[in-house]
Amino acid sequence: MNLTNAVTLRQKVSQLFVVRASGHIYDIQRDFPQWELTNKELRSLLKEGVGGVILVGGSAWELKSRCKILREWAGNPILICADIEEGLGQRFEGGTSLVPPISLGQIYKKDSQRALQLAKEYGHCIGYQARSCGLNWVLAPVCDINTNPDNPVINVRAWGEDPSIVSHLIAAFQRGLDLEGVLSCAKHFPGHGDTNVDSHIGLPTINHKLKRLEECEFLPFQSAIASGVDSVMIGHLLLPNLDYQYPATLSKLIITDLLRKKLGFDGLVVTDALVMDAITRTYGPGQAAVMAFEAGADLIMMPESIELALQALCDSFQSGRLSLDSLDKALNRRYELLAKLTDSYCVTDQNPLTFHNQELERESDHSLSLNLINSSLEINHPRSIPSTSLGVNLVRIDGPFLGKSLINSSPALCIPEQAGYRTCLFHPKGISPWSNDKDSPLVLERLPEGLVLLQIFTRGNPFQGDLHQNEPWPSVVRQLQRHKLLAGLVVYGSPYLWNDLSQSLDKSIPSAYSPGNFLEVQRKLLNALFGSSAIKNSTSFSDLKQFTD
Amino acid sequence: MNLTNAVTLRQKVSQLFVVRASGHIYDIQRDFPQWELTNKELRSLLKEGVGGVILVGGSAWELKSRCKILREWAGNPILICADIEEGLGQRFEGGTSLVPPISLGQIYKKDSQRALQLAKEYGHCIGYQARSCGLNWVLAPVCDINTNPDNPVINVRAWGEDPSIVSHLIAAFQRGLDLEGVLSCAKHFPGHGDTNVDSHIGLPTINHKLKRLEECEFLPFQSAIASGVDSVMIGHLLLPNLDYQYPATLSKLIITDLLRKKLGFDGLVVTDALVMDAITRTYGPGQAAVMAFEAGADLIMMPESIELALQALCDSFQSGRLSLDSLDKALNRRYELLAKLTDSYCVTDQNPLTFHNQELERESDHSLSLNLINSSLEINHPRSIPSTSLGVNLVRIDGPFLGKSLINSSPALCIPEQAGYRTCLFHPKGISPWSNDKDSPLVLERLPEGLVLLQIFTRGNPFQGDLHQNEPWPSVVRQLQRHKLLAGLVVYGSPYLWNDLSQSLDKSIPSAYSPGNFLEVQRKLLNALFGSSAIKNSTSFSDLKQFTD
Repeated sequence: MNLTNAVTLRQKVSQLFVVRASGHIYDIQRDFPQWELTNKELRSLLKEGVGGVILVGGSAWELKSRCKILREWAGNPILICADIEEGLGQRFEGGTSLVPPISLGQIYKKDSQRALQLAKEYGHCIGYQARSCGLNWVLAPVCDINTNPDNPVINVRAWGEDPSIVSHLIAAFQRGLDLEGVLSCAKHFPGHGDTNVDSHIGLPTINHKLKRLEECEFLPFQSAIASGVDSVMIGHLLLPNLDYQYPATLSKLIITDLLRKKLGFDGLVVTDALVMDAITRTYGPGQAAVMAFEAGADLIMMPESIELALQALCDSFQSGRLSLDSLDKALNRRYELLAKLTDSYCVTDQNPLTFHNQELERESDHSLSLNLINSSLEINHPRSIPSTSLGVNLVRIDGPFLGKSLINSSPALCIPEQAGYRTCLFHPKGISPWSNDKDSPLVLERLPEGLVLLQIFTRGNPFQGDLHQNEPWPSVVRQLQRHKLLAGLVVYGSPYLWNDLSQSLDKSIPSAYSPGNFLEVQRKLLNALFGSSAIKNSTSFSDLKQFTD
Repeated sequence: MNLTNAVTLRQKVSQLFVVRASGHIYDIQRDFPQWELTNKELRSLLKEGVGGVILVGGSAWELKSRCKILREWAGNPILICADIEEGLGQRFEGGTSLVPPISLGQIYKKDSQRALQLAKEYGHCIGYQARSCGLNWVLAPVCDINTNPDNPVINVRAWGEDPSIVSHLIAAFQRGLDLEGVLSCAKHFPGHGDTNVDSHIGLPTINHKLKRLEECEFLPFQSAIASGVDSVMIGHLLLPNLDYQYPATLSKLIITDLLRKKLGFDGLVVTDALVMDAITRTYGPGQAAVMAFEAGADLIMMPESIELALQALCDSFQSGRLSLDSLDKALNRRYELLAKLTDSYCVTDQNPLTFHNQELERESDHSLSLNLINSSLEINHPRSIPSTSLGVNLVRIDGPFLGKSLINSSPALCIPEQAGYRTCLFHPKGISPWSNDKDSPLVLERLPEGLVLLQIFTRGNPFQGDLHQNEPWPSVVRQLQRHKLLAGLVVYGSPYLWNDLSQSLDKSIPSAYSPGNFLEVQRKLLNALFGSSAIKNSTSFSDLKQFTD
């Protein structure tokens, strides 16, 4: 092979990779400089032909510029994707936030037609905003069935616990996305729903036999394939009954024999991020990339080291371990998707001089968001939570930083404060409120005095491990009720925790639940629980802490 | 007065106001929707002729678009300002962050020439980045002398505790700003340094006699005026020896008789935000605006209600309470400043298609930032902090949300974690770690077990009241030393707390201080204290929590 061919090979192999970058414009804005390429690196890789970029963070306005810049740097069409499973606002400020998909699984049980319509609008909203900003590949729908309520990484991201419901909903979601012509991705094959290990941290094992998988886990993927999903993402999952040796991401038995041959998916197969600990603890960066390709993946997401992965793959093609034919096949799958895209990206109000009060979020997006909140919340309102001169707003969060969901001006803090409930925030990385007494797990002396409004935020977030499951919330509810201290209860996120607590809760206690946790959700639930009387018409300036210096 | 004149009057009076808006592009991104106008409101007010906009929040990239959009809406030249006392990065992501001005007061004592050079570069850096983004009015320098170490609102924002040092430094800062042709603002006249009340919450009283004020508080303002400062901001301060009745903002004795006549300042006078509780607790929105103008202010910052304030001022001009002559004088001061500005705003890399790896932060800005960190830090490094399998990284912050300074990937959390110190974050709005025992104020049972690295973030931030002053930090240091539990100590922010603690600290304990608290500062201090051996070369993926879903 001569030098010219070698260059061509490297350029071709580059197209097999999706690299990670910040959605922000400037390098110094990167939230994770260890994992996000600099602009210089990114530009150079795009010139080399890298196949796609996954973006995280930044505002929608930045994202519009960002996508234009990346395309300019690439010269050729590229895939630009993001994990916007719950609306563009989940990752990019200014986009719409939607309550998590689990809400639609709940609505479906009451009104399946309504749920299907909402799921379609859900996909349409995400597709529209993605396209408006220049993204062309949405890494959704999640096709995992959350059969395990303790799942630390899927949980509310799933569309439900029932294979048939999930299958119907993700098909409707796909129809919504299709209206905007953006690409979709069914994940995480063959099904990440029944795990209690987070693959960001370790490798989850799923011990189900093929029969059970066929009757449950595979169904939503088959539905997605039948609905024309554009790509399938393989999860970092060990399924010993399918392949006792390799995780799905690196398994030929699972990708080629099962997904391609048995389930008949001939579209683009992408790995989950190879940088995740489930892979890196066992496989080197070059080795993992070669194995994933060999197993049947067409695109390698976020290799631990792009340089080593590129080199290892080039070597394997040159040595003949991998066939050039298989390379062309993988590249063609990507070309076909790119060819399917229309040119209508990024045509909206990016020019500051033609910006006229035009929100990215349209009226219909906002209505959908409110509609989903209203359709999925639960409120038990035997009476209003009383105003008091001495109350405690005890707020439990998954970790110290909840991002835009919890800021100083959040309704979850401001509304109770206006009614006399002082904020007491805690999370597993702070001072412990816990005793060893099972019946009285909260050490009340560690809290401010007074009636307690208990608000629990718990999404079962990745990286958090099994945190909230070690916290004895039903006992806490009983303890506070025994002491006549419980003024109200709100759960944001897990429907499983909400169901557990509902059983311990005295019917006279005002309580509420939403699968979502963003500001609009908080406002809705707390306004309902406190009633209008407790809420001041105007907020004092000093109620809003850290407004400015 | 006929209708045409009435319209003209309202348009003219509109120019007396500076309104607040978010630096973000879209309405739904606003962090404080109660206080930040919607785009529709803003556009309408700008069409009416409103004189200026103060922007808070957003990224530098958004800010560039934002300023263009506001100018387009206004049609006529307007003032666009921001509180970027410590670098554009203090308010807008992507801008440079500089350690607070107090650092230069410290450096001055050791090397005055170097401090003056750095202060000039400080102004130059802010001026350059402000101009690049389209801001034309920098609300700095702070001319308050921080004679009261317990000052909750000025503190590290001041350039020092010595009138002469502050005077020299702010003059150098002004020379730096001048290089970029942006407007400046000396604040908060007649001097906010000797207060222990935060004017965001209440009205501070300063009981000094005129003689003391002339020998101390006034000097930096006189220096600023002599250096050609463009505007002076009046603070919400009661000085009974100057005016027993009215706060400075509303006091003719202070604005007209003292600042204008006695100190000879004929430039633009602007109020501090009228929306602050120091004013609104006593004066209505219309009343406050009329009184401020009557006292001699040319511009009203952030009225509690723009509509009521506008109406009240129009009424006062029409009734003859205020003279139209005084209106023209005030408007002229603003025109003159606008006329002074060059047209060179917003000329840089806003076009995505010509963006080529160009950071807003230039090499020289970055060097200045590092230079200031290095020149103002203190490190006592008798030995490295040991790695351990059982350590606690006890981090104290002013409130639950520190913004971009403390995120999951912050060095203040990640570096200790890599050395075995588990994060335990606390703040006054969380579970209390405090006992009533003066000698053992920390309840050790509430913390995880192990050696403690204690990190204290305290800026004396506005809205936080006198929080850290009630926390017995010297006793905590002695307690941890007594139990041989103190592995290290880091203070970010207050030099006064650092000095206090240094006296209690055993010389064998590694410790460090910086007036700044942002990521680069944390990295610098902790790398020094831990030494290179404790730091892993690469970070595991799961060390970086919440990287993505």
